[in-house]
Amino acid sequence: MSALSELQSHLAEVKALSEAAAVLGWDQQTYMPTGGAVSRAAQITALTRVVHQKATSAEMAGLLERAEAAGAELDTDSDDAAYLRMARRDFDKISKLPESLVAEMSRVTTLAHGAWALARAQSDYAGFAPWLTQILELSRQAADHLGHDGERYDALLDQYEPGMKTAEVRAMFESIKPALVALVRKISALGPSPVDDSVLKRSFDEEGQRQFGESVIRAIGFDWTRGRQDRAVHPFCTSFGRSDVRITTRFDKNFLPMALFGSIHETGHALYEQGIAERYAGNILCDGTSLGFHESQSRLWENLVGRSRPFWQKFYPALQSQFPEPLKDIDGEAFYRAINKVEPTLIRVEADEVTYNLHILLRFEIEQDLLSGKLSVADAPAAWNAKMSEYFGLTPPNDAQGILQDVHWSGGMIGYFPTYSIGNLLSVQLFEKANSDLGGQISEQIAAGEMRPLLDWLRTNVHQWGRKYPPTELVRRIVGGPLDPAPYLAYLEKKFGNIYTR
Amino acid sequence: MSALSELQSHLAEVKALSEAAAVLGWDQQTYMPTGGAVSRAAQITALTRVVHQKATSAEMAGLLERAEAAGAELDTDSDDAAYLRMARRDFDKISKLPESLVAEMSRVTTLAHGAWALARAQSDYAGFAPWLTQILELSRQAADHLGHDGERYDALLDQYEPGMKTAEVRAMFESIKPALVALVRKISALGPSPVDDSVLKRSFDEEGQRQFGESVIRAIGFDWTRGRQDRAVHPFCTSFGRSDVRITTRFDKNFLPMALFGSIHETGHALYEQGIAERYAGNILCDGTSLGFHESQSRLWENLVGRSRPFWQKFYPALQSQFPEPLKDIDGEAFYRAINKVEPTLIRVEADEVTYNLHILLRFEIEQDLLSGKLSVADAPAAWNAKMSEYFGLTPPNDAQGILQDVHWSGGMIGYFPTYSIGNLLSVQLFEKANSDLGGQISEQIAAGEMRPLLDWLRTNVHQWGRKYPPTELVRRIVGGPLDPAPYLAYLEKKFGNIYTR
Repeated sequence: MSALSELQSHLAEVKALSEAAAVLGWDQQTYMPTGGAVSRAAQITALTRVVHQKATSAEMAGLLERAEAAGAELDTDSDDAAYLRMARRDFDKISKLPESLVAEMSRVTTLAHGAWALARAQSDYAGFAPWLTQILELSRQAADHLGHDGERYDALLDQYEPGMKTAEVRAMFESIKPALVALVRKISALGPSPVDDSVLKRSFDEEGQRQFGESVIRAIGFDWTRGRQDRAVHPFCTSFGRSDVRITTRFDKNFLPMALFGSIHETGHALYEQGIAERYAGNILCDGTSLGFHESQSRLWENLVGRSRPFWQKFYPALQSQFPEPLKDIDGEAFYRAINKVEPTLIRVEADEVTYNLHILLRFEIEQDLLSGKLSVADAPAAWNAKMSEYFGLTPPNDAQGILQDVHWSGGMIGYFPTYSIGNLLSVQLFEKANSDLGGQISEQIAAGEMRPLLDWLRTNVHQWGRKYPPTELVRRIVGGPLDPAPYLAYLEKKFGNIYTR
Repeated sequence: MSALSELQSHLAEVKALSEAAAVLGWDQQTYMPTGGAVSRAAQITALTRVVHQKATSAEMAGLLERAEAAGAELDTDSDDAAYLRMARRDFDKISKLPESLVAEMSRVTTLAHGAWALARAQSDYAGFAPWLTQILELSRQAADHLGHDGERYDALLDQYEPGMKTAEVRAMFESIKPALVALVRKISALGPSPVDDSVLKRSFDEEGQRQFGESVIRAIGFDWTRGRQDRAVHPFCTSFGRSDVRITTRFDKNFLPMALFGSIHETGHALYEQGIAERYAGNILCDGTSLGFHESQSRLWENLVGRSRPFWQKFYPALQSQFPEPLKDIDGEAFYRAINKVEPTLIRVEADEVTYNLHILLRFEIEQDLLSGKLSVADAPAAWNAKMSEYFGLTPPNDAQGILQDVHWSGGMIGYFPTYSIGNLLSVQLFEKANSDLGGQISEQIAAGEMRPLLDWLRTNVHQWGRKYPPTELVRRIVGGPLDPAPYLAYLEKKFGNIYTR
């Protein structure tokens, strides 16, 4: 066996064990009975420890060095060279984290998740604060082990968005914030909203929602032989290899968009995973290249496609025949406007496309200050509410609808939020390049129910590569330049200008 | 930390990893999309290898020796002493199997399962024969590594029924075979059956079956906060700790007993797992003491309770109101007789209580001869059919309904079948002791819907102990003597004499 094959065999086993842990996580959020919580934590912790040991062992270090030596002459653009670069990157990163810190983070976040859920249910920030303090401290330790140039946030961000710096994220937000705030103000200044979304809150039976939702994601291209959709409290996408990709959704009888756009969003993630080249199956390159790229896929299908006029030209008749009663007096255009209503709200996951990034900016600012210690855990709710007032003109009535609304911090995911905004910006850049490559015909194709050209373009340009190219390189290969906010802002101006000035 | 605590901490991790593998197995049979098969095999193989490494490592050997030395003075009846005995037994057994053999068995059985399923679907024994040859050879190697006194079957049987010898199983069958054959002949000699079971083949809608089945297993005592029931092609029970015990069932619209008695049977297994003492949670004693004991619990609830007259005195009205149309002309007594019809059939899983053990005897005889080489793989179908003719007067029309019907051999489970008959015999011994301890009132209690006294008796006498006592010792502690076929035969004579001479 060659040195590279030996390394690949070792890392395939590590990957298989990581996938096993992901199966346990999926089950925990879909089918596990409540009684299973304690043993499930022990199972996941044991797996996490084994994965860390095998990924950082002396054996692994030796395999990697021998494979690198044997592969010194490889073509740098070859799969094997990319494999070695990624193996080195992963090894260097994970080796820097002591096993005790990894185990402690796993233990604390398992407990913190329960504490957060309870705190949110009771709007009791004090119940979560000690856990947040611990998680911040562990995150600081992790950042220092990972290494940085004085900006701890860099080290954490790099785990989710390889190569991206905090300063770049700041610059990104600085370039979009004024335009977003102005757009929100312009729309708010119109007075009583010219867009009526009350139709979305009528009664839509759950089984009908499920059937329609499944038909839509099938039409988009979700491969049901290599994936499934289940119910969960929080929608998510997880994969145990490119041929077993699972998404979840949740239903609200009196709020149609929740399941519908949730399913389309998660399908965007799933299409990425299902679309990775088959030759990478079971291989460390078989994953999304960054969370920003992943989010670009979910937001592209959710917003650029799923909330577009052409999409509903195609699908509205089917929706209307699924729900003749609640939709009887609503035409397709009115429905399109309803699902695109812009309104400052307290809750990120319910936000429209215009306000969404301001929610992310707020979190990005708060978590930087928490990490640096500039903001104390005790003062964080007040800081949150002050920013809500500044950006949205709203004051949360309680912390459940404020600082306690998101799960991320309880899971130790400090540095994750910016990837949502990166995904939003990137989704427009990719969509416009696809449209240009497809002769400007995407709208017509979507209106005709032809989703395949767009999916094929994404497969060819994004999905198939998995982690072969780092995100900054991949975006450059596709659009010929870096991440750029301009197309995104232009898209918002055009779409919502059209909706709000008709 | 004491030496014992260190050992327990190590083995708790091994157990957690085994449980993780069980979760993956459950998912594979319930929800996994077809595309997931290849990566699932890699995940389970990786976990199996890690479990074997950790269970047999030099570290483990040292922990065990130190804990044994520190525990030399323990009260032999204490939990800790039992723990050390079981840790030693497990370690000695698993250490004898080379990792390469364990991995090869895992690889071959994963592939053989698919080959068997295809061979059965096509009734193509030749397609399965090469796999059976390999599995027999690996089983011989395993038996030789495990050690035996010339009787290889002993080593395999001991994996499922610790302490039981092949000679004892032979003696058991010799003592029941003549009476069973005589009883079958007596019933067959009555001519056209005096029992009509056609009602069971009427149309029973699946949702109604599910609802009624769930109400029955809830009444029996299944704890839904610590378990769940899903659909699967083959019914089974699996557990990931005593607080996460899962059963599966399958439905046939035109055959009511399949889901109903399948669910009750699996619930019997689940009640055992859910009933193990809480202090054993996450501990190697937290498991059934043998497969025979496990089967005694499933058969007790399925047959002694679920196919009894008092049970249907209680539940028939509810069944009739669930299915008014198909049951409109059937009274409780006729239903009781229908579910107890005795008839020689080709398929084990559809067999009645009288003929069931003859199916097991046939398999026990064939697998012994296959293992010893007295019977060649090529000649096995003919041997199977000859025994079917001898015991049942039936000839399978094809191998799918003959030698290919069971999954066990494809999974490497040679030596497993006898545990079904051990369970049958034991179920009657336990039930009669329970009835005697409960003042002979069990029938009246069941007829009144009071299941708790019987369940409590089983919890106290069987379930709570987990693996603390080996099966031979546990049966002696409960009934004051060894496994005994006499009560079982007397029960059959009485029950079926009553049904067939009315």
